[in-house]
Amino acid sequence: MFYIVGLGLSDEKDITAIRNSTRVYLEAYTSILMVQKERLEAFYEKSVILADRDMVETQSDEILHNADKEDVSLLVVGDPFGATTHTDIILRARSLNIPVRVIHNASIMNAVGACGLQLYNFGQTVSLVFFTETWKPDSFYDRIKENVDLGMHTLVLLDIKVKEQSEENLARGRKIYEPPRYMSIPLAVSQLIEVEESRQSGILSPDSTLAIALSRVGGGDGHERIVAGTLTELSQQPAEHFGEPLHSLVIVGKRLHHLEVDYAQEFAVNKDNWRKVAKEVYGCALDD
Amino acid sequence: MFYIVGLGLSDEKDITAIRNSTRVYLEAYTSILMVQKERLEAFYEKSVILADRDMVETQSDEILHNADKEDVSLLVVGDPFGATTHTDIILRARSLNIPVRVIHNASIMNAVGACGLQLYNFGQTVSLVFFTETWKPDSFYDRIKENVDLGMHTLVLLDIKVKEQSEENLARGRKIYEPPRYMSIPLAVSQLIEVEESRQSGILSPDSTLAIALSRVGGGDGHERIVAGTLTELSQQPAEHFGEPLHSLVIVGKRLHHLEVDYAQEFAVNKDNWRKVAKEVYGCALDD
Repeated sequence: MFYIVGLGLSDEKDITAIRNSTRVYLEAYTSILMVQKERLEAFYEKSVILADRDMVETQSDEILHNADKEDVSLLVVGDPFGATTHTDIILRARSLNIPVRVIHNASIMNAVGACGLQLYNFGQTVSLVFFTETWKPDSFYDRIKENVDLGMHTLVLLDIKVKEQSEENLARGRKIYEPPRYMSIPLAVSQLIEVEESRQSGILSPDSTLAIALSRVGGGDGHERIVAGTLTELSQQPAEHFGEPLHSLVIVGKRLHHLEVDYAQEFAVNKDNWRKVAKEVYGCALDD
Repeated sequence: MFYIVGLGLSDEKDITAIRNSTRVYLEAYTSILMVQKERLEAFYEKSVILADRDMVETQSDEILHNADKEDVSLLVVGDPFGATTHTDIILRARSLNIPVRVIHNASIMNAVGACGLQLYNFGQTVSLVFFTETWKPDSFYDRIKENVDLGMHTLVLLDIKVKEQSEENLARGRKIYEPPRYMSIPLAVSQLIEVEESRQSGILSPDSTLAIALSRVGGGDGHERIVAGTLTELSQQPAEHFGEPLHSLVIVGKRLHHLEVDYAQEFAVNKDNWRKVAKEVYGCALDD
């Protein structure tokens, strides 16, 4: 086996911060981790407190308690700057004169390179939320259009609902939570097509827009799953073909380079059609 | 101290891959690591082979030798998909039927969030190379303009010259290398302004374009340095004010949010001017 190991930006001592902490929190609602809390506890030799949305957003002072005198760690999946919430708690710590150190790590924002598309060719990242009958926010479409018009790829992060309350339970103040939900690739594609059909800008086409679905990037054999194809091809795969959540989707832009086509074809539902669309629709200079 | 720790996308066992490898290479030319090779060797309990550009690009088969039967690791700074070269060696491994596993980690592409700007508001990333008397490639300017026109932030990666040969030594086939060079922030700003003056698109203005310089993000106290200001303010700081290389520069886009202004003002050369330009030029809704 040939391993390529990202060393990150810091040094090899990151875990000492965790081992030296009085309290260690694990933020567990903006994303999901691929390992169990118990394995983390064994590795860090520390017990870990699960911090849900409520705790991080409304009880940040409890998390930060005494952190000017002792060490406290908040573990987050990916990189701490992926979600706004962690900016909020840093600003709160600053206002309390608590020194803060951020330890960076991989996030989907760079690991998306695993699909074979160059990070330099990505425009802005967008989020796609679960539509309801009455709420179908579509501002992401304008962002994708901006990227498409420039020929850039778009990383689309799919919604996740963890510890959400139903409207009824929320209204009645009952802390009863719905089971977690993770948006699937077929649902994401159908929402994208639904918005395209109502907005009619012609930026997304079922049979001539290429996309790449990613699941558990970095999870290694049996976990990571990357599937490439037209939107139609992706929508026709059974949901389990895309692996376990979380999922992300890349909309391929017209600046597509032939080396990107070569690299990603390993993940294609249909290699011939992948290359055909890349050549005929995207104008890639391919030999075949 | 309050630590926020990115756990990355994979699990806590990443280092076992390294400890189990027959040979461990460290790629040491597309970036620089903040720790010494000896510290890595002590931590991994393995000796580490330095791999320069020559080795990774022209002797990849040597690195991959026997990797179908035993484990070999290539360590890279940041994330393996930050530079094209690592895509090349993966494609080469695939053609030799060698299984490949990529272990992701933080890179500047996501850790740039440390400056306080939201990753969602970044457009495409560009690279700025050292200009010479006769070679001043400026295609990056078109990319920055695309981002600026959409109001997005631009991450500008500054050039690094490691193990480069002079033209004379190259022509004579002498493997004599120049000392390493890292582009400084003041040089980067002066090159940006030079191109703006020749292209005249009005996207960069010395006194009304805000930018944020980053150095050794993730390096912690005494290493990480973040400096915010107008291009003029940054160009007037002594080079050492920006810390040790590598440096990166963010050109702030017009979609600047007031929370981004608040977060980044901690790094401002002149807090009052930072807020003034954000309010008057960028149109940020600030209370003051």
